[in-house]
Amino acid sequence: MVIFTPYFHEQNLLRQYRESLSDHAPFLGTIVTGEQEYSDSLGWLEVDKWAEKEQVADYVRLAAEVRKEADVFVLIGVGGSNNAARSVITALQDSGPEILYAGNTLSATSLVQLLEQLEGKSVYVNCIAKNFETLEPGLAFRVLRQYLIKRYGADEAATRMIVTGSKGSHLEKLCQAQGYRFLEFPRDIGGRYTALTSVGLFPMAVAGIDIVALVAGANQMAHYLADCPVEKNPACQYATYRYVHYQAGYHVEQLVSFEPQFQVFYRWWIQLFGESEGKNGKGLLPTAASYSEDLHAIGQFVQEGSPILFETFLTVKSPCHHYIISPDELEDGFDYLDGLDLAWVNHAAFEATRLAHSSSVPTCILEIDTLDAYHFGQLFYFFQLSCYLSGRLLGVHPFDQPGVEAYKELMFAALKK
Amino acid sequence: MVIFTPYFHEQNLLRQYRESLSDHAPFLGTIVTGEQEYSDSLGWLEVDKWAEKEQVADYVRLAAEVRKEADVFVLIGVGGSNNAARSVITALQDSGPEILYAGNTLSATSLVQLLEQLEGKSVYVNCIAKNFETLEPGLAFRVLRQYLIKRYGADEAATRMIVTGSKGSHLEKLCQAQGYRFLEFPRDIGGRYTALTSVGLFPMAVAGIDIVALVAGANQMAHYLADCPVEKNPACQYATYRYVHYQAGYHVEQLVSFEPQFQVFYRWWIQLFGESEGKNGKGLLPTAASYSEDLHAIGQFVQEGSPILFETFLTVKSPCHHYIISPDELEDGFDYLDGLDLAWVNHAAFEATRLAHSSSVPTCILEIDTLDAYHFGQLFYFFQLSCYLSGRLLGVHPFDQPGVEAYKELMFAALKK
Repeated sequence: MVIFTPYFHEQNLLRQYRESLSDHAPFLGTIVTGEQEYSDSLGWLEVDKWAEKEQVADYVRLAAEVRKEADVFVLIGVGGSNNAARSVITALQDSGPEILYAGNTLSATSLVQLLEQLEGKSVYVNCIAKNFETLEPGLAFRVLRQYLIKRYGADEAATRMIVTGSKGSHLEKLCQAQGYRFLEFPRDIGGRYTALTSVGLFPMAVAGIDIVALVAGANQMAHYLADCPVEKNPACQYATYRYVHYQAGYHVEQLVSFEPQFQVFYRWWIQLFGESEGKNGKGLLPTAASYSEDLHAIGQFVQEGSPILFETFLTVKSPCHHYIISPDELEDGFDYLDGLDLAWVNHAAFEATRLAHSSSVPTCILEIDTLDAYHFGQLFYFFQLSCYLSGRLLGVHPFDQPGVEAYKELMFAALKK
Repeated sequence: MVIFTPYFHEQNLLRQYRESLSDHAPFLGTIVTGEQEYSDSLGWLEVDKWAEKEQVADYVRLAAEVRKEADVFVLIGVGGSNNAARSVITALQDSGPEILYAGNTLSATSLVQLLEQLEGKSVYVNCIAKNFETLEPGLAFRVLRQYLIKRYGADEAATRMIVTGSKGSHLEKLCQAQGYRFLEFPRDIGGRYTALTSVGLFPMAVAGIDIVALVAGANQMAHYLADCPVEKNPACQYATYRYVHYQAGYHVEQLVSFEPQFQVFYRWWIQLFGESEGKNGKGLLPTAASYSEDLHAIGQFVQEGSPILFETFLTVKSPCHHYIISPDELEDGFDYLDGLDLAWVNHAAFEATRLAHSSSVPTCILEIDTLDAYHFGQLFYFFQLSCYLSGRLLGVHPFDQPGVEAYKELMFAALKK
């Protein structure tokens, strides 16, 4: 479950929040189950559409083959084709091949270093590209395909390359001709909403993540949010909280957590909201910080700097690990820690920080039960739906990203495409 | 050299920039050489004060001993005691012991995972703590000290623990009693300004970074900026650009680069500016993005979202690596890349992005010659001086951080300190 707890820095914002939630209830109620207008982008709304039992079993089977043979698994993808899997893998992987990332940068240094890391190891590659027109993954696909062929010969290379792309695309035809395994990138889902499809799930499975549990968590959340009345619905509440604070002039949302395992998840969240909302001169700028570490960096600004942000605390009720702090014969000045559980100290730091910051900026809490695959599934679905709701409240198209064409046009002109 | 190139989104901002630079010239000219009022925090202004030849040689000698014996080197420190070294090590390390970080989080999961990573390896530890009252490093010092003693016995453990702290402190006395090597954390420098002291330099040296070159780069920059007339002085120009845009309502500065090697450097920069400026309800919120990857995340927002930010592009004139893109027999649709140098493609992407974004938001460029230790030294000094100048233009104390006490008081009350 995701529990949303809002706090209000100004009394009138509490009033506006209640009014907005009540006024928008019929509108939000429609969106939760999807609107006809966006039906070509709502493939994620029913988790079963692209992650039903048999599909998930296929990913697990293929992943088991890769896990058996690979020392290194290179995930080629950028943005939505990489962030969800990378979030979970970074947080939870504890066995299986080393996962490396390519096609997410144009740095020659990164590419050279990647190729060096492959030497002497058994390499498998998964190239993920919806349109196969994006420069970074296109280039990495070429380089790694050539690498595999040079190292293993064309026949064995073909067994080591798995491609995730659109059905009926030019890329699919290339893969058929080469004999590459091909997974379907759903046509009715934009990259940033694909966590719960082949795009996110297959690489997670290679890293040994329990994707059956992850999908179960997402399904639980989908059914819960579809059935929950708007005014008690945490996705509707969170979206309304964001909207009301944006309207009040808080133009930045900072997502923070005291669990460092969320470090890549922030990147997924930033893309989801930044690309969905940042248009028509509107939108909350999404930023993130990893506490307690970043309290020693951005904490001062939150407490006393320009009052332009609100903070969303992502918390975990039952921590994954405990650690009892032993006393020490040395008089180190930290004897107040003797015998305490570090997980409890971390929680106390969270509570103190939330309270201290709430004297300066609005804060809210999103709490999950524990940090495992099941709850990552819940989080993906929760934020995807919240983002759809947020975009609609703001009056923008939540599923397009027209602004990224501007630099691409100039770049392709320079490259004489 | 650091070359600053400003672009102006609005004509009147160009005018204000010129006027501000001219009006503030006497004031900025004073600050460049340091003010009496802040003399107890200006130990970094003359690089030689804490990084003169003999001191640097000492760090190199001690580091050589660690490099010879250690498989793993654990750097205990948080914020200013960790970010500078970590930035350079992440960007440039290519030999020497594995560097791990502790004392920068309260996560039991992170601590348990760290201890697992030490098993079977030869471990050295450097604990960096100015006041030795901060919870995270204090706890990590205790845990790792106990770990070393249990594994090696007290005598050998003493040879493996190196502490960086204030002279005359309680911590120094503890270390003397235990026989630990002790490096001096300068009393007249706050944590976020310590890149060019024992705090930053010793761990870098352990990672094989050429700290002699790094200090030489910082010295070159210090002399250049001290002698350069205000109106041509890139630190004064950059600080004025920031100030004028802040005044005009751009309340966020996003630092970006097309060199992924800067990923941890952003963290150092965020702390430097966020803690120095974010007070009295003022200050630019510092954020960062790693391009081209994050163009697929935050690019849409920059181009078309709320117009609250300006972008600072950190660029490198001569890239570290080149990679010529081979043609492919496969008709992959990327033949426009055939024979191009990826480093040039990356540069073209930078130019296209800067130009595209400049139609929506103000942009400026900071260019260095190449990405090596010498130029990291230049960057550290350049940003430290720019930050001092920025804080003074804004009218805040650039060297304190009173706002971080608020959560600490509440936390210590909960922990019954």
